[in-house]
Amino acid sequence: MPDPFTTPLPDRHFEDYVPGLRAVYGPVDVTEAEIVAFAESFDPQPMHVDAGWAAEGPFGGVIASGWHTTAVMMRLMIDNYLNGLTSLTSPGVDELRWHRPVRGGDRLSARFTVLDARESSTRPDRGIVRTRIEVVDADEQLVMSQVMTNFIRRRSA
Amino acid sequence: MPDPFTTPLPDRHFEDYVPGLRAVYGPVDVTEAEIVAFAESFDPQPMHVDAGWAAEGPFGGVIASGWHTTAVMMRLMIDNYLNGLTSLTSPGVDELRWHRPVRGGDRLSARFTVLDARESSTRPDRGIVRTRIEVVDADEQLVMSQVMTNFIRRRSA
Repeated sequence: MPDPFTTPLPDRHFEDYVPGLRAVYGPVDVTEAEIVAFAESFDPQPMHVDAGWAAEGPFGGVIASGWHTTAVMMRLMIDNYLNGLTSLTSPGVDELRWHRPVRGGDRLSARFTVLDARESSTRPDRGIVRTRIEVVDADEQLVMSQVMTNFIRRRSA
Repeated sequence: MPDPFTTPLPDRHFEDYVPGLRAVYGPVDVTEAEIVAFAESFDPQPMHVDAGWAAEGPFGGVIASGWHTTAVMMRLMIDNYLNGLTSLTSPGVDELRWHRPVRGGDRLSARFTVLDARESSTRPDRGIVRTRIEVVDADEQLVMSQVMTNFIRRRSA
């Protein structure tokens, strides 16, 4: 789908995140080597790092750490949706769900829907945007979803 | 604090996660090189990867991607709290909050409190455990919190 933003990423500010706006970015390929490397550092459960164990396990092969899936999503978000120069941190995420396992060879895309956007009542330099994020595989099956809140610099600031 | 579990990690099952149980693990040191390496792969915002930009920015230096903090927490969780052989994936996380920035040189510990634990009504091999997780720095200041749900194999299964 075409990029729904009228402002290119390097100039994107709070005012560009209009409630209802929906963008899809990707796909990005995930390899089993990347899955294992991430999990060896941060989530070394046999289902994520041990191909032999995982082949006999409940999933019939290695699956990605859920935190790896969130990290892959974040990269898509920064490369396409959120301007790293006007993004002013995130206070948090709600309703993070891992719906289906991710495996090496999967192609992931991320859908971003602006749920609401309001000016901060205490910090005039920023607005508060809530985004529903859905990561899907090549068959459009949902693998992860969450609602992220972001503080974003106002153009007028 | 001493480990509150009576069952060592390699034999830990659903029955060992008793509501009210509270465990603290760590500390682990986080370096700026690790912060930058993670963010270069997954969250390349200037505040996470560009020391020169970050020095002039709102935080006066590089801060960690929030997803890096969750990944460091997950490593503490797998090394100490959750047995990778009886852990059967997580359906998700609620109320993920990043309270304070994490910087190179910070020493992080993680507190795990079992909120509730119940047998699955549909899958007799497992129980469902909800854990409140709090990551704190060396001054016991809260940097991240969340509530994670885990499916964990029953000993009797």
